[in-house]
Amino acid sequence: MAIKFELLKEAKDCKARLGKLYTPHGVVETPIFMPVGTRATVKAMTPEEVRDLGAQIILSNTYHLYLRPGHELIKEAGGLHKFMNWHGPILTDSGGFQVFSLGNLRKIKEEGVEFKSHIDGSTHFISPEKSIEIQNALGSDIIMCFDECTPYPCSYEYAKESMERTTRWAKRCKEYHKNWDKQGLFGIVQGSMFRDLREQSAKDLVDLDFPGYAIGGLSVGEPTELMCEVLDYTTPLLPKNKPRYLMGVGTPDYLFEAVIRGVDMADCVLPTRVARNGTVLTSHGKLVIRNAKYSKDFSKLDPECDCYTCTNYSRAYIRHLFNVNEILGARLTTIHNLYFLIRLMENIRKAIKEDRLLEYKDEFYKKYGYYDKK
Amino acid sequence: MAIKFELLKEAKDCKARLGKLYTPHGVVETPIFMPVGTRATVKAMTPEEVRDLGAQIILSNTYHLYLRPGHELIKEAGGLHKFMNWHGPILTDSGGFQVFSLGNLRKIKEEGVEFKSHIDGSTHFISPEKSIEIQNALGSDIIMCFDECTPYPCSYEYAKESMERTTRWAKRCKEYHKNWDKQGLFGIVQGSMFRDLREQSAKDLVDLDFPGYAIGGLSVGEPTELMCEVLDYTTPLLPKNKPRYLMGVGTPDYLFEAVIRGVDMADCVLPTRVARNGTVLTSHGKLVIRNAKYSKDFSKLDPECDCYTCTNYSRAYIRHLFNVNEILGARLTTIHNLYFLIRLMENIRKAIKEDRLLEYKDEFYKKYGYYDKK
Repeated sequence: MAIKFELLKEAKDCKARLGKLYTPHGVVETPIFMPVGTRATVKAMTPEEVRDLGAQIILSNTYHLYLRPGHELIKEAGGLHKFMNWHGPILTDSGGFQVFSLGNLRKIKEEGVEFKSHIDGSTHFISPEKSIEIQNALGSDIIMCFDECTPYPCSYEYAKESMERTTRWAKRCKEYHKNWDKQGLFGIVQGSMFRDLREQSAKDLVDLDFPGYAIGGLSVGEPTELMCEVLDYTTPLLPKNKPRYLMGVGTPDYLFEAVIRGVDMADCVLPTRVARNGTVLTSHGKLVIRNAKYSKDFSKLDPECDCYTCTNYSRAYIRHLFNVNEILGARLTTIHNLYFLIRLMENIRKAIKEDRLLEYKDEFYKKYGYYDKK
Repeated sequence: MAIKFELLKEAKDCKARLGKLYTPHGVVETPIFMPVGTRATVKAMTPEEVRDLGAQIILSNTYHLYLRPGHELIKEAGGLHKFMNWHGPILTDSGGFQVFSLGNLRKIKEEGVEFKSHIDGSTHFISPEKSIEIQNALGSDIIMCFDECTPYPCSYEYAKESMERTTRWAKRCKEYHKNWDKQGLFGIVQGSMFRDLREQSAKDLVDLDFPGYAIGGLSVGEPTELMCEVLDYTTPLLPKNKPRYLMGVGTPDYLFEAVIRGVDMADCVLPTRVARNGTVLTSHGKLVIRNAKYSKDFSKLDPECDCYTCTNYSRAYIRHLFNVNEILGARLTTIHNLYFLIRLMENIRKAIKEDRLLEYKDEFYKKYGYYDKK
């Protein structure tokens, strides 16, 4: 089996866990945040920079790579690791989320999903088997079952129908998957915000015995409290000795809430996307660097940060770069935001070790100002 | 004096020279190519990357920095070196070239030039004194006299009038310049393509005894042969013990022709600008990476290059990055192009040392294909 998970510790003050995830391209400490490299590059960064910031695993998107440059080409190049020069672990999603996000451009059938490319309108068909075929070609360490991510809100009837189909698709993915020794296949728990559906989904997928489980269909617009509630009853349904991956989560508050409820892995484009728009995460909350008040501010982005950006550049300089649309601006803020989240997860792991995660969360928020801003 | 030039060797087979340029922020080996960081950043690069590629001095643009973020702000930040985190030598131009490029938006008077900002249309006035004031505030190691760069073609009458004004402005710059111990002021020889005007300009400026001389008004659209002809008779008019800087030149062929005629310094946005459009310089000539024929080409950009880009990435990957408009694409081609030109200049210096520059030029062109393509 490609993927092995070692549970090192369970917290005493909450459901958080410490673990180690063994993959063919290296070991990952959990809980972990995974930077996103949608199109075979973490935007604005070299792989060495991502690694040097402390990232241990990255995520890449099957849908995007299937369309451009194509999975066959990446296979020919020697696989995704070699193609993009990232030699650590890679997780790919199944393409499901992107395909379902296409709205009118896609048609769901039992066999799979027909959709039109968002680039040129050409027609494509992705079935569970096709998704696995693509991910097998990419050669990522962790691959995902093809699933439907239901929107929020969603009727009970549709959520049930969709969840059951996702389970049937998971079976087909498992049967079709070829490289168990090189790639671990995760099942994805769905069921929208309905407890009995989540329970059914988890039960059926656990019966299929995947090496890891993702929780899908959250962080799709529902209130934070609702996400927390679903996590509260969903993570206990999953085996303790398998990693749990909450898809699409990457703000400090969501990361805290997820880890506290027993989540081991998370990913999100947020830190890199907002960075390119000039928004940075700091220990004192968010900061919009284009704001005129920073034009003569020669202090660093975050007074408590020692990343490359904060060590060498002032807010005034970074604001200037954004003001004149220089690429270095996006690079510097991306470095800072990734470093911020990676350090946050390091601190979270340390706090779990010391059984003081809830305490650390309060300390963090006291400065970050989350409670004030809500 | 801030600037000292040591002439180490004169070639036997041509007028090329080897030298050392001492500046307050370090020593520069000449002949040298200077990457351009127009708006206080060499586009897409960090200063450390520029330095690690072997760059010894960079150029920044007074006109752009004056408008955004403003020279006063940079002065307040501790000067341009500190603001942009480049701790090696910096040369700034006078702003003249950009102001005169504004065409209808500027009016030339004896006192200086009135112009409208290309950004917001606001009216500004740059005189020789103002240009020096700005450059004094920036704190660059080498600063330039405010001059008019005449277009090509240009009438004899206008070239004469303009050249004489440029000389009068040079006197005013010299008188106004405050920081002779920290910043070396260069005079700029003008006179378009007219031998007697170039002779007059050089004579008058040499009488003013600047620590270095630039040759302006070339590489502005004239045939290569004409540029070579002007260089042929202009460089001998300049003192041997002072550095000679040919402004705006940075293609391999122009660099060869300039160095062979006794030029010590040159700058150009070309390698970084074309890189961002996906054009790379290789030992076998130019290569347009967006071309479909590279889509499955897993070889490196330049088979003879050992830069970061060529060591780690294939043409197919870089083409993919350009195809999907990823920032890393521009970074990788910029790294390669700068490395290519910096290595070329290293090889040129080595060839001068060994008195085989003309031979090396032939070797280079045999592969680069310059003769074939003309």
